[in-house]
Amino acid sequence: MRAAVLTEPGRLETQTRPIPTPAGGDVLIRVASVGVCGSDAHYYREGRIGDFVVDAPLVLGHEASGVIVGVGDGVSPERVGSRVSIEPQRPDPHSRETRSGHYNLCPHMEFYATPPVDGALCEYVTIGSEFAHDVPDSVSDDAAALFEPLSVAVATARKAGITGGSRVLIAGAGPVGLLTAQVARAYGATEIVVSDVSATRRAGAARYGATRVIDPAAESVHDLDVDAFVDASGAPRAVQDGLRAVRPAGTVVLVGMGGDEYPIPVSVIQNRELWVTGVFRYANTWPTALELVRTGRIDLDGMVTGRFDLDHVEDALNHDRTDGAVKAVVTVTPSQETLS
Amino acid sequence: MRAAVLTEPGRLETQTRPIPTPAGGDVLIRVASVGVCGSDAHYYREGRIGDFVVDAPLVLGHEASGVIVGVGDGVSPERVGSRVSIEPQRPDPHSRETRSGHYNLCPHMEFYATPPVDGALCEYVTIGSEFAHDVPDSVSDDAAALFEPLSVAVATARKAGITGGSRVLIAGAGPVGLLTAQVARAYGATEIVVSDVSATRRAGAARYGATRVIDPAAESVHDLDVDAFVDASGAPRAVQDGLRAVRPAGTVVLVGMGGDEYPIPVSVIQNRELWVTGVFRYANTWPTALELVRTGRIDLDGMVTGRFDLDHVEDALNHDRTDGAVKAVVTVTPSQETLS
Amino acid sequence: MRAAVLTEPGRLETQTRPIPTPAGGDVLIRVASVGVCGSDAHYYREGRIGDFVVDAPLVLGHEASGVIVGVGDGVSPERVGSRVSIEPQRPDPHSRETRSGHYNLCPHMEFYATPPVDGALCEYVTIGSEFAHDVPDSVSDDAAALFEPLSVAVATARKAGITGGSRVLIAGAGPVGLLTAQVARAYGATEIVVSDVSATRRAGAARYGATRVIDPAAESVHDLDVDAFVDASGAPRAVQDGLRAVRPAGTVVLVGMGGDEYPIPVSVIQNRELWVTGVFRYANTWPTALELVRTGRIDLDGMVTGRFDLDHVEDALNHDRTDGAVKAVVTVTPSQETLS
Amino acid sequence: MRAAVLTEPGRLETQTRPIPTPAGGDVLIRVASVGVCGSDAHYYREGRIGDFVVDAPLVLGHEASGVIVGVGDGVSPERVGSRVSIEPQRPDPHSRETRSGHYNLCPHMEFYATPPVDGALCEYVTIGSEFAHDVPDSVSDDAAALFEPLSVAVATARKAGITGGSRVLIAGAGPVGLLTAQVARAYGATEIVVSDVSATRRAGAARYGATRVIDPAAESVHDLDVDAFVDASGAPRAVQDGLRAVRPAGTVVLVGMGGDEYPIPVSVIQNRELWVTGVFRYANTWPTALELVRTGRIDLDGMVTGRFDLDHVEDALNHDRTDGAVKAVVTVTPSQETLS
Repeated sequence: MRAAVLTEPGRLETQTRPIPTPAGGDVLIRVASVGVCGSDAHYYREGRIGDFVVDAPLVLGHEASGVIVGVGDGVSPERVGSRVSIEPQRPDPHSRETRSGHYNLCPHMEFYATPPVDGALCEYVTIGSEFAHDVPDSVSDDAAALFEPLSVAVATARKAGITGGSRVLIAGAGPVGLLTAQVARAYGATEIVVSDVSATRRAGAARYGATRVIDPAAESVHDLDVDAFVDASGAPRAVQDGLRAVRPAGTVVLVGMGGDEYPIPVSVIQNRELWVTGVFRYANTWPTALELVRTGRIDLDGMVTGRFDLDHVEDALNHDRTDGAVKAVVTVTPSQETLS
Repeated sequence: MRAAVLTEPGRLETQTRPIPTPAGGDVLIRVASVGVCGSDAHYYREGRIGDFVVDAPLVLGHEASGVIVGVGDGVSPERVGSRVSIEPQRPDPHSRETRSGHYNLCPHMEFYATPPVDGALCEYVTIGSEFAHDVPDSVSDDAAALFEPLSVAVATARKAGITGGSRVLIAGAGPVGLLTAQVARAYGATEIVVSDVSATRRAGAARYGATRVIDPAAESVHDLDVDAFVDASGAPRAVQDGLRAVRPAGTVVLVGMGGDEYPIPVSVIQNRELWVTGVFRYANTWPTALELVRTGRIDLDGMVTGRFDLDHVEDALNHDRTDGAVKAVVTVTPSQETLS
Repeated sequence: MRAAVLTEPGRLETQTRPIPTPAGGDVLIRVASVGVCGSDAHYYREGRIGDFVVDAPLVLGHEASGVIVGVGDGVSPERVGSRVSIEPQRPDPHSRETRSGHYNLCPHMEFYATPPVDGALCEYVTIGSEFAHDVPDSVSDDAAALFEPLSVAVATARKAGITGGSRVLIAGAGPVGLLTAQVARAYGATEIVVSDVSATRRAGAARYGATRVIDPAAESVHDLDVDAFVDASGAPRAVQDGLRAVRPAGTVVLVGMGGDEYPIPVSVIQNRELWVTGVFRYANTWPTALELVRTGRIDLDGMVTGRFDLDHVEDALNHDRTDGAVKAVVTVTPSQETLS
Repeated sequence: MRAAVLTEPGRLETQTRPIPTPAGGDVLIRVASVGVCGSDAHYYREGRIGDFVVDAPLVLGHEASGVIVGVGDGVSPERVGSRVSIEPQRPDPHSRETRSGHYNLCPHMEFYATPPVDGALCEYVTIGSEFAHDVPDSVSDDAAALFEPLSVAVATARKAGITGGSRVLIAGAGPVGLLTAQVARAYGATEIVVSDVSATRRAGAARYGATRVIDPAAESVHDLDVDAFVDASGAPRAVQDGLRAVRPAGTVVLVGMGGDEYPIPVSVIQNRELWVTGVFRYANTWPTALELVRTGRIDLDGMVTGRFDLDHVEDALNHDRTDGAVKAVVTVTPSQETLS
């Protein structure tokens, strides 16, 4: 099979690799669509993200859909032919974190496109059968791939406690910020303020649920008195400002990856008894994501602003530098082609 | 002022009473609209609800809106002229329950139209200033009155944990059931099953958020596997069946008032570790109700199927016997008349 | 190996069976001690518990400790020789319930001594390696076996929200009631009221944490105003009374197995907005149980009032009919014998 | 009456002031004991804490007990003669925060010894009747005064989720750290690690619940894998290190007041999905504090290492500079003297 392999920072090669064999409990999936995440671009450009270093050839891509074309031992052959959205993680079912329902925090996790585990920018992948989630025909290949970033937004909304009537500030109108705005709207939030330094991005935010947009360079968020602040920017300044926008006993969810360590207004957390946490991937979000997309409450297809094939993965990785770009998707093999 | 007074079961008189004087911290409100609740009809017909017995003349009505026309000591005169939705409760601010945020459970509560406290089916009422919630002009007098039953539905949704992607069963398509369906939809629930023995009521449910309706006489709910079951019927059989419809670790909220004591399938609660609770009024729901109505996520005006004046309160109390009835409202003095 | 097998209600045979072979991921354990649970006695006498019917020979016993003497594929041989407490459940790691941390509610659960799965009243058993929890030498074989009922009490205390300063009512001073009293004391509860119709049992309760005992035939619990009520009796009357003892917004945990369906004062649940739930086994309790026993906060050895061997299992099953009996334990092979 | 008044930083005068008159709802208390808090010493030395600036003469002291000697309108005269522990806050009963149970976060709070509100280092004070909590004779005047810092520890334990079997790291072995250790022990925590740079303070920690002490200059806490980290030191370095000691999904409660803003390892919060919050005073803690002290689970009297009278308040404020000092108490008028 063909695979787009990161061989060194800034260098991507299309290589031929053997089609993987599904282990016991796994399914073999012919990949349909793969979304490009900011972390893929970061690995491509920098060769590392924090402690995760690419020191051997790596297949990128962890937002993927496809069709099951084979099964390992213990998996029903009836699954062959299913169109699926891939939850790209392999936790140890027996770790303390997994047993308590936090499988995303499992210390023995193997996660797509996280060194040394290969990702989905190739023709075939395997995953545990339970992590290949069936999707109905009404959900496109691209949308099924984007259940992954949608899951980040769903996990965020849960931790932020977003519900009917919530007032929310979201910093950063990239894909995760926009998806969080969409999820907030779907959950009944009635004030959804999105801040972003880019006018283009701000213009996009209203389409995806923002009830108000703010240019943080021109306007302060300090007096917003929101129930929840979600940082999807990773910018220390946005985090520092956003914390001051939250009402007493409100919540703060840090999703965007910024520096490892930076100044935080700790006395604000203390004096208002804010609850501050982060989102690291997701657990038990796919059923929710499916329901939200199936019922039309979340629009994923509209967020795709660039489509590429497996021979143009570098273009896909650089798509984020195009003005107005939201999400690039790599089409590998459309599921209809596999199924016909 | 004129007041509709229940003097004995089944007998309502229009009496002249003095306009009340607002005590310190209170506001005086000229009543605009008053919704009729099932409990009002029950007091009217039976003279009691459980332990609450009408043994002296009582003004009914606890779903009310109006205009502030006077203030007591310590309240800013600037409140005069405000259109308000009335939260009809007076908890003791110092009780254990109030201090811990459950003011609805305060043992010293004085609540409109609950013996011996008079209600709102009259021209003027008083309430603590903080329980008279401003509404914008876009919210009608009727809608402002119906924030009260909407608050029951909001309290229910919170306790039921309804959120994006939730699957919910609601038994009973009366006003509270329909409002709960609307709130569930607003909160992102994607499966909202409403059961009711009445075909007319089932037909109405779809308009207010139901994704499926069930005639419990013809179809079992046991296999629904919902996340939450809300009983808004008060029927023991509906509760017994509904409990069996809930997935393990799901929630059950009993809103409808039925018998004091009846058989419950306790082993189902145990074997599935369900969480079962009730809703007794509400706390801190008005801001949410306002946001939901202001943004058009909840339709209250459409639920009004009968309008009456203060001389026809008995007709309003009997409106629930009309086929297709959802909600009767008594118009006392339209707020525009007070304000002009 | 020898096994005590229930062949029909009231009839127990010692049979010779092959020593089981540990499957992949499993360990083979030489059984040391096995506690006798009320459910074992119930199966023995009645041949069924609710929907669970013994229609083929069954080995009873699910409270067990032992020594690892073999391992299946994928388990480190270094585990051989470990003294362990057995968590007697095999959930499906991929079910919805397991993935969300409620593995005790997994619909595909295989549980010791629950038809058709054999239990531990025999010389050797197997279990998933992660469900064989190491215990230090300071914990006796008997205590390690009794981590199982202690886990029920830990799960109960968690659901009941018992914490420092809690006021708790526990109905029923059998093993689970006494263990719940001990756990409540260990968690800082300061009022622990235990009710039981038996004077002998009431006398025992004070030893295990009760700050007050009540004979429900002589004294009402209705005015207790406790934060939490735990029913460990299974008696409908105790449940009906206990519900009335709880403060508004308090919790009720039903542990004792009584009838499938019986009258419940539903209006009390509603008017006080109680949270009522059940405990069905446990999840993630063994580490807590170990810590509580290791630090001397819970006394398990003192609760053993009868010791038997594998040839006298029927006596062990009938031990609960002895006045003053709390817990019977069957000694199979002391761990020191295995390890020497 | 006499009052110890801070007239400028570093300067304390004993002044004569009129005995206050209790307003409606208030009680008048003859002060018995007053504990000295680090914040009192800070105001005394620096004249400010963060945004709170002493720009007019201020009576310090907010940890106080006494005897009710008068009542305002609406308070039962039967309260006169009651020995009480004072909860030194006056929230607005109608603010959003108070109504939702977070009265400590009320933006209109008036709090003892917080400019411009006078504190308790004087002979008579007033407080809302509900904030004067009766104590039994078994609780000393000093202990009743120290319910206030104990309340901080109780609020901390609640937010940290400390329960049976918890593993906790507490940074800082000052009064709040030691009280948190005591509360953790009372709540069933089984690993209570206390870190402090002072050998004297470490030596004291074991007496109050620590199962292990750490000198952070000599030993890292990073591998502790605790369920909860409580910072009671206010030292940025302790916070930075402590965050790394927490297991995934664990909690962090920042109690100690340090700088307004300092570097925080944000990626640790994110990657482990920690929940980080602060404690700002307390709500609904006095009943718990009373229960814990009444039952002997918490020792307050033993923590008093210095006793002073109203003429030696400066010595009391400087007591924290004595080696081995834990808590200074100013005896104003022993309650027995008032009651005799």
